[in-house]
Order: sequence, then C-alpha cells, then structure tokens
Amino acid sequence: MAKFYRGDNTLEVPMSMFRDNRERVAAELRKVDSLDDSAYVLLQGGTDINLHDTDVVLLFRQESYFQYCFGVKEPDCYGAIHVKTGKATLFVPRLPEEYAVWMGRLLTLDDFQKMYEVFEVKYTDEIDQFFSEKNPSVLLTLHGVNSDSGLSPKPVKFEGIEKYKVDKEILYPIITECRVFKSPEEIEVLRYVAKVSSDAHKKVMRKVRPGMLEYQAESIFLHHCYYQGGCRHVSYTCICGSHTNGAILHYGHAGAPNESVIRDGSMCLFDMGGNYCGYAADITCSFPANGKFTEDQKFIYNAVLAGRNAVLAAAKDGVSWVDMHKLSNRVLLEKLKEGGMLKGDVDDMLNAGLGAIFQPHGLGHLIGLDVHDVGGYLPGQPSRPTEPGVNRLRFARTLKAGMYVTVEPGCYFIEILMDKALSDPNMVKHINVDVYERFRNFGGVRIEDDVLITKDGNENFAIVPRTVEEIEEWMASSAELCDD
Amino acid sequence: MAKFYRGDNTLEVPMSMFRDNRERVAAELRKVDSLDDSAYVLLQGGTDINLHDTDVVLLFRQESYFQYCFGVKEPDCYGAIHVKTGKATLFVPRLPEEYAVWMGRLLTLDDFQKMYEVFEVKYTDEIDQFFSEKNPSVLLTLHGVNSDSGLSPKPVKFEGIEKYKVDKEILYPIITECRVFKSPEEIEVLRYVAKVSSDAHKKVMRKVRPGMLEYQAESIFLHHCYYQGGCRHVSYTCICGSHTNGAILHYGHAGAPNESVIRDGSMCLFDMGGNYCGYAADITCSFPANGKFTEDQKFIYNAVLAGRNAVLAAAKDGVSWVDMHKLSNRVLLEKLKEGGMLKGDVDDMLNAGLGAIFQPHGLGHLIGLDVHDVGGYLPGQPSRPTEPGVNRLRFARTLKAGMYVTVEPGCYFIEILMDKALSDPNMVKHINVDVYERFRNFGGVRIEDDVLITKDGNENFAIVPRTVEEIEEWMASSAELCDD
Repeated sequence: MAKFYRGDNTLEVPMSMFRDNRERVAAELRKVDSLDDSAYVLLQGGTDINLHDTDVVLLFRQESYFQYCFGVKEPDCYGAIHVKTGKATLFVPRLPEEYAVWMGRLLTLDDFQKMYEVFEVKYTDEIDQFFSEKNPSVLLTLHGVNSDSGLSPKPVKFEGIEKYKVDKEILYPIITECRVFKSPEEIEVLRYVAKVSSDAHKKVMRKVRPGMLEYQAESIFLHHCYYQGGCRHVSYTCICGSHTNGAILHYGHAGAPNESVIRDGSMCLFDMGGNYCGYAADITCSFPANGKFTEDQKFIYNAVLAGRNAVLAAAKDGVSWVDMHKLSNRVLLEKLKEGGMLKGDVDDMLNAGLGAIFQPHGLGHLIGLDVHDVGGYLPGQPSRPTEPGVNRLRFARTLKAGMYVTVEPGCYFIEILMDKALSDPNMVKHINVDVYERFRNFGGVRIEDDVLITKDGNENFAIVPRTVEEIEEWMASSAELCDD
Repeated sequence: MAKFYRGDNTLEVPMSMFRDNRERVAAELRKVDSLDDSAYVLLQGGTDINLHDTDVVLLFRQESYFQYCFGVKEPDCYGAIHVKTGKATLFVPRLPEEYAVWMGRLLTLDDFQKMYEVFEVKYTDEIDQFFSEKNPSVLLTLHGVNSDSGLSPKPVKFEGIEKYKVDKEILYPIITECRVFKSPEEIEVLRYVAKVSSDAHKKVMRKVRPGMLEYQAESIFLHHCYYQGGCRHVSYTCICGSHTNGAILHYGHAGAPNESVIRDGSMCLFDMGGNYCGYAADITCSFPANGKFTEDQKFIYNAVLAGRNAVLAAAKDGVSWVDMHKLSNRVLLEKLKEGGMLKGDVDDMLNAGLGAIFQPHGLGHLIGLDVHDVGGYLPGQPSRPTEPGVNRLRFARTLKAGMYVTVEPGCYFIEILMDKALSDPNMVKHINVDVYERFRNFGGVRIEDDVLITKDGNENFAIVPRTVEEIEEWMASSAELCDD
C-alpha cells in the first residue's frame, strides 16, 4: 500500500485517500450535463519559490487543490483526471541527470506511479501530446476567488494549451464543495494532526514559566509537532501572545515576532497548529503564565468558556453557523454582565455592537487542507453577513455532517476598540467603566477547538485541558518532560 | 541604543551596524566621479508572500541588500540613502487603523525612527514627494545577476518613478563588494550565529541514535537554534542525510525530506545553519550514527579532515581560493591513495578529473547575509574556472582579510559518478575497484567550517568536535541533555 508516512508513531495516510478525493470530484462532475465522456480536469501543482533573488529555495508546500487530488510532495507537477472514469495521470518534471548528484536518485515514472498510485505517470513535457491523443472536449481548470485572501489560483499553463477548449467555471465550485465535506480517511488525518498539536500545546503549558520569551513557547510547539508527530510544517505562523499581546489577533508575524518576555501574572494566548500530509490543525489555549488563575483571569476565561460550551452543545447538522456565532456572543456578554463588567439588556448590547468590541472576529472557520479552508462563500450559499463582528465570519452556511470547523470564541481588551466603546453612547451606557478599565492591560482569551460536525452533534479533536481546574492541575503536575 | 535583540542570552546587534554598512556604501559611491551631491540610493525591501492563493502568509525574511542597509524586520518598506551625507530615509507602509486589531499597535514614524536609528522616516506613499523636493540627479537602484541563482533583484517600483533618472549600473557592484568584506560588528553577529549553530550541532550529535528518523535530528537543531539562540529562521533547508543519503548534496528538500530511519553502522552528514538578524551560519558535521567510527569510516573521514586541515593551515589574505580548492582535492586523493582506494600519480588523477568524482562541489563559498553570499563573480574579478569540480566554485577570487567563507571539503560515493569513473579508462586505472566498490553504500563525509580570513591566517567560527577522537568522546559523554 502506497502511503504518506513519517515513521515511528506517525500516521500512515494511504494514497487511496487521494484517489477517493479524485473520485468524489469526478462523480460530481459526471452530474454536469454539459460535460461529455472526453472531459478532463487539469490541475497544476505548486512551484518552488526562491528567497528573493538568492538560490535559497523556500521549503515547499504543495498547493491545496493539487494536494487534495494527488497528495504529491514534489513541486512542478501537473495532474489530469478523466471525468468519465476517474483515471488520473500525473505529470512530473523531466529532470537532468545531474539532479541525481544534488537532489538524489532520479525517480522513474514507474517509481512515481507506485508512490502515488495514479493510473499512469508521464513527463510534464508530454502534456500536450497526452491531450492531443485524448482529444478532450474540454479541460476543466481552476478559476475562482478565495474568499479569505481575495486571491485566485494561478491559471494552468502548459505549452500548447491554446489548442484546447478550457473551461474555468465548472470545476472550482464543485471541487471546492467536495473539499468542504471530509471523507472518513481525511477525518483520520485531521484527528491525527489535531492530536499531535494538542499534545504540543500541553507540553508548552507544562514548560512555560514567567521570564521565558514567547518565541521559546513557539519553539517547544514546533519541536514537538516535528519530532514527535512528523509535522515538518505548521499551518500558519504561531501566535504566542502574552500579556497585552494576547489582544493582537494575528500576533507573531514578522513585525511582532513573539519576542516579549512572558510576565508573571499575565495570561498567555497561544494559537498554533501543526500540518501533516497537507492537513491542518488550528488550536488555541489560553492560560495564566504562572499556572494559577487570578480572579479577574478566571472571570474572563470562564465567560469565554461558557460561550464555547454553549456552541459545542448546540452545533450539529442543520444548525446555522451565524446562529452559533451569535449564541457565543450572547453568552459572553451575559457572563460579562454577571461578573459586573456590563450592565443592562443583553439584546441592547448586541444591537449596539458590543459583541464585536469584545470579539472582533468570527466564531470560527472551515478547516481542512487550508487553515482557513475553502468553501466559505460559494455561489448559492448564504453571503457574508453585514452586522459588525458577524461580518467577519469566514462562512455563513448551515452546518452539515462532515464539515470540519474551528470553534474559537474570544474576549479581548484591544485599546482602540475599548476607546471606541467608551466614546459611543450606545455602548458605554452598558459598561461599568471602572471594571472595564481594570482590564485595559489584560490582553485576551481565546479558546479554539477543531470540531467535526456530525448528524447529531459534533466531535472535538482538540484534546487539551479546558476548564480552569483542568488547566491549573495540568500545569501544576510534574510529569517527566525530558522526552525530546 | 536601538538594537536587534531576542532576549535572554542572545546577542544585542546595535542598529549602528546598519548605519555603518550604509556609510561604507555611501563612501564608495562618493568615489564615483559621475555622481554629484544630489544622488540617492533607493532600495526596496521584501514583500510578503502568500502561500499559493490562500491567506496564509509565509514567514517573512527581509531581502538581504535591504537588511544590510537598514536591518528592518517589517515587509513592504523602502529606504533611501543620500550619497553625499549618508543620511538615510526609511519609508514604511501607511497602515489602516484596523491593522491595530489584527497586527498590533500602529507604530508611529517616530517609533520607527527610534527603532532603526535612521535620519528620518516617512510613509511609502510619500516617496515621490520626497524625491520631488530633493530633486536628485539620479536614483541608484539594484540591478545585476546573482551568480548562484541566476536571478536578479526585483526592480524598484514606486508611483512616479518615471519622473526621475534611474541608474541601474553603478550601485550593484559597489554595494555587493561592500557586503563581501565584513565589518567588526558584522563579524560579531556571524560569530554568534555560528556559535549557536555549533552548539545545536553538538546537541544533535549527542542525541542522535540508530533508529531515529533523520528529521528528528533536524527538529533538535531547529529547536536549539530558536529556543536557545533566538534564531527564528535557518539559513537554508536542513540537510540531514544518513547512510547513502549522505551522498545527496542537497538532500532534505521537499522531495527527499529527511525521512529515512538512521541505521546503525551508517554515517550521518548533517549540514545545517541558523540565521540571526539576517546573518547566516552554514556548518556540516559528519559522524557515525552510533558514535563509534568503523575503520572504513575513519579512513574516509580522516581523508576529508586532512584536506580541511591543509586549507585551514594555508588560507589567508593573498591566497587564491582556487588554489585552496585544488589543495584540498589533492590532499583528499593522496589520502585515498594511502588508504589503498586509489593508485598511481595524484597529478594524473587530478588531470583525469577524479577530484570532482569524489567531491563534485566547490571547496566553499562566501557567506554573510546570504548563505551563498553575493560577490562571487563580479566584473573585474576572476571568472568561473572551467575544470571539472573547480568550475563548481562559487567564487574564484584571491582571499582578502575580512572575507568570510565556508571551508567544506567532502568525499562522496555517488552512484552515477562512481559508474562514470569506473567506465572512464583515465579514471579507472587509478582505482582499486574492489576497495572502491566496498564504499558504494557509504554515503559521504563533509566537514564544513565557517572561516574568517585575516591578514595572517584565518579564524574558524564553527566550534564543534572535528577529529575522530573528539567526536567519539563527545558522543559518548553523558551530559545532562534535558535543557530544553
């Protein structure tokens, strides 16, 4: 059985998973009346990227649609799928003999065929010849806008493509919709990478202590994911915010590279997820740096946790994701009111936009091969809401079994949003200002799980300490940590 | 004092280092007769790169010429240097208010000025206005071909540039030549990153054992560099080849991702280097996986070591780098002859091209901000040699004090090159075939140091066990390893 596998205790991902993905796409395409028996899908894999004008090549990550259909780790490949039969042809670059000296033994076409279990393998310089023999009625290629990035896939190019009829409309919504619903094999990969990432978070929680640099937590996470889990990549830049940095939603980027000292008495908000065989995890743990919650920390943490628990109790096939967002917002504000930070009617608060002051981002997003996975705002699906906060949702669909989403409510004390709320009469009237101001340097709390939607509920693949008691107990325990 | 600093035991790099770099460039430009008092240098920094069409942004690394002059960690900046005065103006993007929610507090121009100690800071949308006020006779921009990649720097673009006279010829050779000679401050950064990388290699050597996956060694290295040394990046993809993989010069890439099990009795060839404040290390250690050399391993290792020792004894200001390459080649072949693998006259062997069979790459390269640093084949310098093997040198200059180079002789048993040698009458006559064939699955040995050339000799910044005895002793010692 051909597989993606990184040895030791890592997961064996059978190449049949990608064959099944291809088959799902082909089966959906066969329902399209306008396509005849000679239609082909043609996908182009990712290419290597040099670091600026140097000869350093950035560590390659495969393009996600190509990964979905072929699971190929090498750059510069193409893949064709015969819609009628589902038969797949992989095209690989013809490499010069000298490649063997610098990059390793040249694999034969037969090697590639065995490695990826496709129907056949040819060289990329044979694509034109291949199609001239097949004489396809149409080549279906990717064209569409990623609703998170606003970017489009690179148009497929090969010498001779102008001879063929190319359709850019049919494939994108269909293959994207296939990606939204995870197959049983994909679910096992997602479960695995979430488990590895959960364990890495747990290790970080045990090792963190005041005085450490934030990036040292990032390093522990990366090391665990790679060393123990075979995850060479993480799915996004690690966010390791402590103290006020916890209120910077995408902290950790090059301009704010997790470089602060973690202070005693501060909260940590660590949002990190591994990547295995192209599949993502995206988990956030929030906890006190010193392992013991203060009353204020407990207040905010439990308010967020209550919203998260409400969503996990309600999310299932048939439920609107927008309703889930609103539910967690409502619960958060209710808890902040119970704790004395807010006052008045919660509906009024929500109408005034206070939900988006405390949590300016959406409740969560689809996740799969991409951390913000595709399928958010496809044609025929609910379009982006307009209300503040809710408009940050990356999708607004009704949940269906097989969808995989993050549930990540948060509560943040972001300077410009605090000042906005305090200067808005419709908001400030709900705020006990002295209490609110006490939290100005609090940072934030986010609790992010990776959740598979099922017919009757959901399953959470993020297995980390979540209650105040669980976190304090976990961080206090003195298990042997010298396993790396 | 403004600085690049990652806390704890990491190095404080004063921003004055970059000011001095700028001043060196400006001083050289002032010697150019055709430039008048109103000439400006204009550099464009690197920009963010998205992962394919997703909203995942690859972890940013600054473009090296821009780093050299400004040391700025943020993407999307520009920098101008007034040639006459050396005064520097940094241009930073004007970010929307919402940025503060997602990416952190908006830094003011004054914040940037203090952080980078430039003369002044403006927004990138003010570049045209800035230059229209300065009315420069010419804007000097980068244009040239990187002799390692064959790529060119991205041409500078800003709205209005067509109004100015742009010169693309003057700057490149001058700034590149400045980068070749390291300043005292740069030398301290290079010493630091080589020390961090050396320590990481030493940790790997202690932790490696047969049965481990090669990528686990990579993970240990990365973790040490980041956790202990504040190096968020490595300078190139880690090469962790064991057994026959040691004969793949650029092993570790996406198609061969350090995924083999390290076998008992095999050699490891691990080529890895951290990156701190943009500056590179590039160190290779070769050692037996189980900590104890076999006689065959000792034979090859000591042959390479002898070549390396000969170079370190000879390399200094005034010596030809090509001669150093030939010296190490000659010593290697002499030692292989002494050990019974080769026979006959060593000059004949070299003329037949046997040197490039055992070591198909150059002795080493310039190193600095780029791991294969610029300055290799500038106009007016010796051009690329034509002999096999020697033609792989990345520069062919006479060494001068202040140059920083890798010394990395190797000996590899590469299948296609072995077969080539065995089928070439001029080569095979020097080979004791039975001995040679015994090494077909040996892999390879490379010993790579990072060496500063001085007036009277050189200084090696790679501080790792190098002799057979040192390596065996180091790997046998049972120091406490649980420090991460």
